[in-house]
Amino acid sequence: MSFREDGHAAVDWAADYLARVGDLPVLAQVRPGELSAKLPPSPPEQGEPFANVLRDLDDLIVPALTNWQHPRFFAYFAVTASEPGILAELLAAAMQQVAITWRASPASTELELRTVDWVRQLLGLPEGWHGHIEDTASTGTLAALVAARHVTGRNAVVCSEHAHSSVEKAARMLGMELRKQPVDGELRMRVPGDLSGVAAVVPTVGTTSFASVDPVREIAEQAHAAGAWVHVDAAYAGSSWILDEERWSQDGVELADSLVVNPHKWLLVPVDCSLLWTSRPAEFREAFSLVPEYLRTPEDAYALSEYGPALGRRFRSLKLWAVLRCYGAEGLRAIHREHIRLARLFAGWVEESAGWELAAPLRFSLVCFRRDGTDEENEALLARANRSGEIFLSHTRLDGRYVLRLAIGNARTTEADVRRAWEVLNA
Amino acid sequence: MSFREDGHAAVDWAADYLARVGDLPVLAQVRPGELSAKLPPSPPEQGEPFANVLRDLDDLIVPALTNWQHPRFFAYFAVTASEPGILAELLAAAMQQVAITWRASPASTELELRTVDWVRQLLGLPEGWHGHIEDTASTGTLAALVAARHVTGRNAVVCSEHAHSSVEKAARMLGMELRKQPVDGELRMRVPGDLSGVAAVVPTVGTTSFASVDPVREIAEQAHAAGAWVHVDAAYAGSSWILDEERWSQDGVELADSLVVNPHKWLLVPVDCSLLWTSRPAEFREAFSLVPEYLRTPEDAYALSEYGPALGRRFRSLKLWAVLRCYGAEGLRAIHREHIRLARLFAGWVEESAGWELAAPLRFSLVCFRRDGTDEENEALLARANRSGEIFLSHTRLDGRYVLRLAIGNARTTEADVRRAWEVLNA
Repeated sequence: MSFREDGHAAVDWAADYLARVGDLPVLAQVRPGELSAKLPPSPPEQGEPFANVLRDLDDLIVPALTNWQHPRFFAYFAVTASEPGILAELLAAAMQQVAITWRASPASTELELRTVDWVRQLLGLPEGWHGHIEDTASTGTLAALVAARHVTGRNAVVCSEHAHSSVEKAARMLGMELRKQPVDGELRMRVPGDLSGVAAVVPTVGTTSFASVDPVREIAEQAHAAGAWVHVDAAYAGSSWILDEERWSQDGVELADSLVVNPHKWLLVPVDCSLLWTSRPAEFREAFSLVPEYLRTPEDAYALSEYGPALGRRFRSLKLWAVLRCYGAEGLRAIHREHIRLARLFAGWVEESAGWELAAPLRFSLVCFRRDGTDEENEALLARANRSGEIFLSHTRLDGRYVLRLAIGNARTTEADVRRAWEVLNA
Repeated sequence: MSFREDGHAAVDWAADYLARVGDLPVLAQVRPGELSAKLPPSPPEQGEPFANVLRDLDDLIVPALTNWQHPRFFAYFAVTASEPGILAELLAAAMQQVAITWRASPASTELELRTVDWVRQLLGLPEGWHGHIEDTASTGTLAALVAARHVTGRNAVVCSEHAHSSVEKAARMLGMELRKQPVDGELRMRVPGDLSGVAAVVPTVGTTSFASVDPVREIAEQAHAAGAWVHVDAAYAGSSWILDEERWSQDGVELADSLVVNPHKWLLVPVDCSLLWTSRPAEFREAFSLVPEYLRTPEDAYALSEYGPALGRRFRSLKLWAVLRCYGAEGLRAIHREHIRLARLFAGWVEESAGWELAAPLRFSLVCFRRDGTDEENEALLARANRSGEIFLSHTRLDGRYVLRLAIGNARTTEADVRRAWEVLNA
């Protein structure tokens, strides 16, 4: 096979896919097992041309895609794999770096440190923080709790009842006790009274359900007074700090011991790219490193595998670098401003329309709303809308009530797309 | 920017890189900090064309690469990002699947289950095992230990003194006690006498240092008799089970409760692609799932995020699918046979040459050897060889003695490359 020829065909396939993704159903219109039934039960004995794989993308794979690149994908948190990010993944795979140590890939190691520091600057985070890339915020939060237990010698974790499920999952994996705190009227974690035995407190900036913002400063001050580690989960909303006008939600984050922000959520980088910073790098590393201090070489200062669970690390910084360079800070800010504008526009329609209400305060680019009526009616409305293939929204519950969520985060989403969503919901 | 145009340029860059990688130094010939000094300290304000990124690959990145794709890369375990795998990464990034649940990506979820099952069949593993993809064996082993602790309610882990560092790292992260066992004359873990309080025993098929093979059957029988979980680490050597003649090392693996094998090591798939199987899927899932049984829907049966730490999962099965189809079982077997033949050839030269000796029995495609003389002399020999840029080998220690390792695993490696390595070492 000719790599060059197959590669051009693959690029053309990808370009065509991106050009037509808006015409595909957003949510996959298949039943569980439908793709499996079409895939051969056994592996091929003989090799085939790559062209066969491309052909089967259309026949088998595309119908079973939920199209996250679709401009009317409004579920969960909407994301974007931007063009420079996609091409960087091709290049990273071709270079096949496995950055287990500095010498195994000086390029991957040093580019990662630098690009993550670029993001730190763009978000206005403190100088001197050590940042690296993990696959997901789940892994970053797991690593932070490992560090917290190592440093404090304690075993409890405190977060809001609206914290992401990854906090509970990490605590469970680690055998740590989880204490969920109730929230106030604005869905913000109440500052816990008793922090005895607490290894880590995990406030969220931009919760998964409502994008609510916990009072990080107050929590951090109290946690530190009690000797606990503060891990801030800003996986979604942290990217918005590239805008001065959204920095209000950063208040107190400078006190964090660790912080996760996901460029694969709202900075146009293809999954996976989750950033994990710590203001206490030496202690953080100590929790993971198996290298005794007396065996350290100057190179080891760079070994990013000592700041998280995995030893093998792929060249993820390349896509972050490509996106930051091709959009520039200006380009990224413009997209954030537009997404937030569109969310406000949609929230305005909800507010001014009889029979609809906002279910939570508007934060960032997430609108939580519902139609007057029963939970069953709202659930049926959402099911019908998603089945149409025209839009895809997800839901949550607030005090037991069914709530619809419209999350804006795809770079291809226009005002017309948001308007169409409103029409479909009102049809 | 035009994605199509930039994409073709990126493919051409990748094709040129792969065509010339054999002429580049294998080990990066840079000092720590050398790349960092060339990278701008601050992020760009304005966006740039993607062509600038491609240009800077040559100017900045390539000189700082350790070229894992080089045919004379013999360090650690040599790996290959094959052409279909590289292009599949481009396609996966373009489709940007985030398979947090089945409905979030039926394609990613079902293709993953099927392709991992194809590998199960190719390797001759038992029917009915549940397999999925993790980023690295470190994560798979971490997950297995979480499951083992969950199932047994115990807290100790047993492995050989030559087990991979990821076992120790995972135990440390989880706060589990690690008991390292001594090895016998063939570097195989001695079957431990007392397994009280042991959650998991982790035998290795193909240890990192020597590719030695622990007596899995004996270990598994004893571990199970004591109520412990058996996790087999076959990250490197497991792929060789595609050859009937290498199945000897699989003896007893059918008794495992969980198993890791890395297609990104020796099945031509670009990093990251590590497979984790379990013969006890219900219990395994229970250790991770936050969904109570009574809330389960039929779709949930497919949610692969419930078998490991991460919630967000990228479309890694696409590259596994592309590689399996484009090479076929035949093609993969031919490459394994050739790698093993080359390792035997090299080991033969070592054995028949005065002043050289094998340091451990030859296993799979890894040759462990040394030159007669002091550790310092061997270390200097290796440093000189690696500095030449012509070859890259790594080292280990056996009973304190410095040992050189030549690992064959790159699909582009020919007999001439192995011969050249021998010449450089003898120069």
